[in-house]
Amino acid sequence: MDSSFAYLFGGLDEGQMKKILATKKEIPMKKGQQIFTEGQEANGVYVLRSGAVELMTGLEKDVDLPISLLRNPGDVFGSSALVPPCQYSLSARCVEEGTLFRMGTAALRKLAAEDRDIGCQMMTNLAAHFLDRLKETRQEVKMHFKTLLGSTRS
Amino acid sequence: MDSSFAYLFGGLDEGQMKKILATKKEIPMKKGQQIFTEGQEANGVYVLRSGAVELMTGLEKDVDLPISLLRNPGDVFGSSALVPPCQYSLSARCVEEGTLFRMGTAALRKLAAEDRDIGCQMMTNLAAHFLDRLKETRQEVKMHFKTLLGSTRS
Repeated sequence: MDSSFAYLFGGLDEGQMKKILATKKEIPMKKGQQIFTEGQEANGVYVLRSGAVELMTGLEKDVDLPISLLRNPGDVFGSSALVPPCQYSLSARCVEEGTLFRMGTAALRKLAAEDRDIGCQMMTNLAAHFLDRLKETRQEVKMHFKTLLGSTRS
Repeated sequence: MDSSFAYLFGGLDEGQMKKILATKKEIPMKKGQQIFTEGQEANGVYVLRSGAVELMTGLEKDVDLPISLLRNPGDVFGSSALVPPCQYSLSARCVEEGTLFRMGTAALRKLAAEDRDIGCQMMTNLAAHFLDRLKETRQEVKMHFKTLLGSTRS
């Protein structure tokens, strides 16, 4: 699995990763299948094994805004399942048939409580990941403001 | 201190909070004073005691986009100091004279390493906080897209 796996599991050693991967189930996905929906109670974290998944957010009725396209084996998604209020912050849809690993939130939480090193490392990774996404998204807001500034000046 | 304090320190007990507050220094701030600057190496987390602080991000040369105005004693800012790459993600400027608590990053990290419960709790709080801000910021992006959709339809 490549480095995109690292945003949640980076810094964990082989023994810790063994414990985490012991909670996984391999599940198939078909093109067009909705894996989870924004706002839904989140009870699993996913790792892409093969195929492709699109993450998106609802813009208005029947219109979604694409956020990212995951194609690399090891790509993690659904990690808002690990953070209160434990709801998916985006929707995920299969856009190319493949397989996923699914790790149940309850099992991961139990592991994090039993092994505080796993818990602290995963939570530090997640905080850094969400801060990164936040900075990226602020850049998008800035681009919109710059466009507005440009159009009022011209 | 009110509940806005909770986004970083929520879930910690009295003994743990004592340890954290033992690392604080009280510092005065004057109107117009730059407390820290976006992108700068982050070595302290701040708690507002009195006065007011504006958080903002640079839009273009000499133009800042305001992100939030902190006026409530207990408001926390600069928490990206606790997350790799340990750089401030926003700039902070005093807009009303007052005082701050400053807690050094090194002291907080040492505490988090010595007491894993403190570390895990703070990191979980931070992950939830950044995810909240991310959702809010995505809403802003959506508003811009809706405006664009509206203007292309009319």
